[in-house]
Amino acid sequence: MHTLSPLSATEIKQAVALVKTSWPAKTDFLFKVVTLQEPPKKELVPFLAAERQGKALPLPERKAFLAYYLKNTNRFHEAVVNLTTGTVESNILLGPNLHGNVDMDEAAAVEKIALSDEKVLAEVAKLKLPEGAVLCADTWIYGSDGVTDNERLYQVYMYMRDPQNSSEPDSNQYAYPLPISPVVDCVDFKVIRIDILPTGKDATVAPLKPYEPVAPSEYVPEGRALRTDVKPLLVAQPEGVSFTVTPAGETGHIMDWQKWNFRIGWYPTRFNQREGMVIYDVHYDGRPLIHRISLSDMNIPYADPRAPFSRKTAFDLGDAGAGATANNLKLGCDCLGHIQYLDGVVSDGEGAPVHMENVICIHEEDSGIGWKHTNFRTGRGVVARGRELVLQSIITLMNYEYILMFVFNQAAELTYEVRATGIVSTQPIDHSLNKVGVPFGTVVHPGVLAAHHQHIFSLRVDPMIDGHTNQLVYSEAAPMAYDSVENPYAVGYVVTETPVLGTCGLDTDYDRNRVFKIVNSQVRNPINGKAVGYKIMAPPLQKMLANPASFHNKRAEFADHDIYVTTHRDHELFSGGWYTNQSRGGTGVRAWAARGERLDQDSDIVVWIQFGINHVPRTEDFPVMPVESMKVHLKPTNFFSVNPALDVPPSTQAVNKSTLVCSSSSSR
Amino acid sequence: MHTLSPLSATEIKQAVALVKTSWPAKTDFLFKVVTLQEPPKKELVPFLAAERQGKALPLPERKAFLAYYLKNTNRFHEAVVNLTTGTVESNILLGPNLHGNVDMDEAAAVEKIALSDEKVLAEVAKLKLPEGAVLCADTWIYGSDGVTDNERLYQVYMYMRDPQNSSEPDSNQYAYPLPISPVVDCVDFKVIRIDILPTGKDATVAPLKPYEPVAPSEYVPEGRALRTDVKPLLVAQPEGVSFTVTPAGETGHIMDWQKWNFRIGWYPTRFNQREGMVIYDVHYDGRPLIHRISLSDMNIPYADPRAPFSRKTAFDLGDAGAGATANNLKLGCDCLGHIQYLDGVVSDGEGAPVHMENVICIHEEDSGIGWKHTNFRTGRGVVARGRELVLQSIITLMNYEYILMFVFNQAAELTYEVRATGIVSTQPIDHSLNKVGVPFGTVVHPGVLAAHHQHIFSLRVDPMIDGHTNQLVYSEAAPMAYDSVENPYAVGYVVTETPVLGTCGLDTDYDRNRVFKIVNSQVRNPINGKAVGYKIMAPPLQKMLANPASFHNKRAEFADHDIYVTTHRDHELFSGGWYTNQSRGGTGVRAWAARGERLDQDSDIVVWIQFGINHVPRTEDFPVMPVESMKVHLKPTNFFSVNPALDVPPSTQAVNKSTLVCSSSSSR
Repeated sequence: MHTLSPLSATEIKQAVALVKTSWPAKTDFLFKVVTLQEPPKKELVPFLAAERQGKALPLPERKAFLAYYLKNTNRFHEAVVNLTTGTVESNILLGPNLHGNVDMDEAAAVEKIALSDEKVLAEVAKLKLPEGAVLCADTWIYGSDGVTDNERLYQVYMYMRDPQNSSEPDSNQYAYPLPISPVVDCVDFKVIRIDILPTGKDATVAPLKPYEPVAPSEYVPEGRALRTDVKPLLVAQPEGVSFTVTPAGETGHIMDWQKWNFRIGWYPTRFNQREGMVIYDVHYDGRPLIHRISLSDMNIPYADPRAPFSRKTAFDLGDAGAGATANNLKLGCDCLGHIQYLDGVVSDGEGAPVHMENVICIHEEDSGIGWKHTNFRTGRGVVARGRELVLQSIITLMNYEYILMFVFNQAAELTYEVRATGIVSTQPIDHSLNKVGVPFGTVVHPGVLAAHHQHIFSLRVDPMIDGHTNQLVYSEAAPMAYDSVENPYAVGYVVTETPVLGTCGLDTDYDRNRVFKIVNSQVRNPINGKAVGYKIMAPPLQKMLANPASFHNKRAEFADHDIYVTTHRDHELFSGGWYTNQSRGGTGVRAWAARGERLDQDSDIVVWIQFGINHVPRTEDFPVMPVESMKVHLKPTNFFSVNPALDVPPSTQAVNKSTLVCSSSSSR
Repeated sequence: MHTLSPLSATEIKQAVALVKTSWPAKTDFLFKVVTLQEPPKKELVPFLAAERQGKALPLPERKAFLAYYLKNTNRFHEAVVNLTTGTVESNILLGPNLHGNVDMDEAAAVEKIALSDEKVLAEVAKLKLPEGAVLCADTWIYGSDGVTDNERLYQVYMYMRDPQNSSEPDSNQYAYPLPISPVVDCVDFKVIRIDILPTGKDATVAPLKPYEPVAPSEYVPEGRALRTDVKPLLVAQPEGVSFTVTPAGETGHIMDWQKWNFRIGWYPTRFNQREGMVIYDVHYDGRPLIHRISLSDMNIPYADPRAPFSRKTAFDLGDAGAGATANNLKLGCDCLGHIQYLDGVVSDGEGAPVHMENVICIHEEDSGIGWKHTNFRTGRGVVARGRELVLQSIITLMNYEYILMFVFNQAAELTYEVRATGIVSTQPIDHSLNKVGVPFGTVVHPGVLAAHHQHIFSLRVDPMIDGHTNQLVYSEAAPMAYDSVENPYAVGYVVTETPVLGTCGLDTDYDRNRVFKIVNSQVRNPINGKAVGYKIMAPPLQKMLANPASFHNKRAEFADHDIYVTTHRDHELFSGGWYTNQSRGGTGVRAWAARGERLDQDSDIVVWIQFGINHVPRTEDFPVMPVESMKVHLKPTNFFSVNPALDVPPSTQAVNKSTLVCSSSSSR
């Protein structure tokens, strides 16, 4: 098993068994996380370097990280076990105010508890729902309020299927939100309170009224009229794919594609419970680029100021986990062409391994023209088409979907793309307000409010641009002073470069064309002597709007700056902190950056890139929203001597076999 | 011939013949522009509306617009001829300081003049070029300096082919810039001055020194090692395309695709000399969206403050023309799949029609997942793939290429995409500065400087969102005040909307999530009562850096604001002014907006969207740069009641026929 391979099913069992030996035989456990504890970077880096050179260093010791509860208690522990030596290295009780993530089994159990609670049903009865109404209860993380943060709780939001379509298990419940929200505790697993939701203009909670029927809003195709004019578009790869996935042990893989290389044992993706895909030890044409890259965290704070919505903010990775919620991808649905799937292994509440099929798909795409020049004198055009390698995973967080992609291209550019889709989170609003609305949300269906919310993502990049000593710098373009000697025509402008000399949070400035770059000042471009580097291109981000005094703001430690830079420390992987469920802040990247450590050209830095959108819902986002795409690009900047895609063979009809639409045939 | 059809070859001949009748029989002409004069909007709108309803209004009179010189003079005229009545309606002498565009014939003639001028050759001799050196001379527009702006001039930049590869007509001359720049006048067509270029750190012009050999830098594939591991990726459309192009007269076309509709005579693209593609009368599912949309202008100001580079700024549409410089697109090279091409007609210097083949290609692309939701309770995923219709044109401006695309999708979104590629404009720099550089440019090859430059594009949108009375508004998201009653948890935020009440230039503000929308306040969304609209999503733009006192800044009238809004007036089509060559400003969108006209919900507005990049060249941009993509999206916002792509049939393997990569087969 390679030192970076995810835990195998056998290892998960071994790790759980080792922890159980620390406790009396009849102890009941609720395992929240069983995952690989990566070796310390100071062991890992020499190991990988030696391996790449064909030398045989001894494998670092293999370890597992576990987080678990003693069942039906709030006693939350984390443990590290050494699988190599078969010993428990540490096993500590956490707390106060530290809580494990939701898991899908627990969420399902909480739904059952809410739906069978008599007091809940008594409240539901006041709604006088149509006969045969089928209720659903979505288990939400409770959020933080500074009061009950030491109790692990769930806030349950209730819906029903379309009463006219109650037998359809895939009826869109989010078109029928109910104003009743039970709170369930996680020791006794009982409903401890029932919140009645405000459905008016302000925080006033009105007595429950009978439900008013509304029009259907289904997304499943049954019973809906579909377009009939979409003709098939097929991707054929008659000679197969241009990539190679080589298994490395039971759970690891190596990827080779178009000079991109993730070497043996340094398999391309590690599918863990928290982060989903993680890419390690990225090289291009033999040159080191990135030691480790993953989506570190995300936060979705909602705009509705009223309780309990004031606690509504989701850390989908820390609270739930991109690995645990990954879709089982289907051939012909989620990708076109020649597809390779990878499976994942997670663990359930008992600590047993769970095999997850097709959690990552790997395929190639044509990306249009990659570069072109036509000599206007001879008329000869030389055009190279772009090809991309896409590693895709899709996660479902109850109502919502994120399509997460690492995209590699032939110009040595790495793109991280998020496509947001799925169903917006909904809540009831009085029908009298349908055409009036509220300023913190949009009515997307009669009686259905989708509150505004931000999606703020944090991409963690542990770079190794031509080595592990990297610097963050930023360039800016500014006009030259209007000066009769240096700039007599007032047109000149210059580009300056500023190194970032300490750990901190930083923002871009579009008026100055501020561009952040990760450079290695010790390696110089042979043409122009500039430090080799990669620049960061991220879409504009509106930082978190919640007040710094709020728990929303305190908890999402990454959401206040476009960029954070820290020195590398093992275990500093998640920018919102290790445990985000009902967290109170102080344990994420804002805190790490505040150490104020000096940075210079010998530093081993980690760069955290924030991006996202302020989602002001539209009616067009319902019942399922069209994808909203966000892309972060890492592009070489004076890293190569020429266009790295210059050696892509020019595009020819002999290869591409396009066909001509005849005017006559297309005129129907 | 439909009222919006481009001029046919016959009409071009008729228009030219009519103008010639205004002059003595032996007059020599140099025709710069012969194009359709669109009917006034007040005639056009009722005509199109009646036509769409199947009524038969009489065709508006057919007119042509011409701009021409009396040959070998600086007497520049514009004329409007009425093709319906066969009369010259106006024919006026322009000036001072107004000049026609460059044309490729004239550019070639100027190159010949420069290369055969004895004084030029005497300067070249000082460079002691290797035997057999082949010189090239690129004809640049001269720019403006406030001094000689009433004389039409060309600034010629000189290069040579790689001396070791002189017999290769496609050798990359831009790797061999020479420090000699002749100036040619456009009356006598003679070299009137030879500028010796500064090649050091400052404006000092050193005596010419012998040329120093440098390494080759070719982009043609001959003699270069190419990748051998790119396997074919083919797009097959066994049932043909999902679009219909219906010819409408000799030069017009109608497009129908996935509810997008550009009706009879309102063919999808008009390929004119100035703008290239123009899209008219865009409807979606029968609802009006856009009356006319086109790339209105672009400007590329360079950062080098030293003469003659201080005058280097290109208006590639106004100075040269996107129609005139369009590539002849090749099947299997520029697009994949089932492709339809459209031809164009322009005119030459004699006023004769020139047929241009394959100037626009039309095809469909798969755009990945369009929307998806998985019910976590049942595990059922419903996924609709996205399909796009792409109308593409590629223009070559000597060294540089722009790929220009209108992209329509099934979610009723319209995207304008520019991909910048080709070869950066280069100039010589002393080899002693290779590793030192200058702050206004990047050394991209030994002895070769690529000055920093901005690309600022201006997209003109004449909207008709559910009708012609539209408003520009902007929404912003701002935190609610921290207040114990309204916002006690300090998390609330609200979205406000502000109408723009007068013509002006406006900027976005990412910290406020300022989003511009074009709405029709007289038509309300049936779900939530909001004004139906389309929002504008453009990438961040650094506005022009050149000082407001400079000619760069004065001339590029659009380059100082993200958005301009004006009231519609016929002939206000080009945001940098009608004649950009050696222009002095005062005739573009900045001037029109400064009229300060009041806007309300009954206004007929035009919206000008600016976008672009500050191109700080990298070594990776040489010899041909990888595409840099910029996209402007227009997306419906409370225009529809539901996701407009909801009726796209879910993606199935039965249709998509993807294939599985077996681990064993892929492990080579």
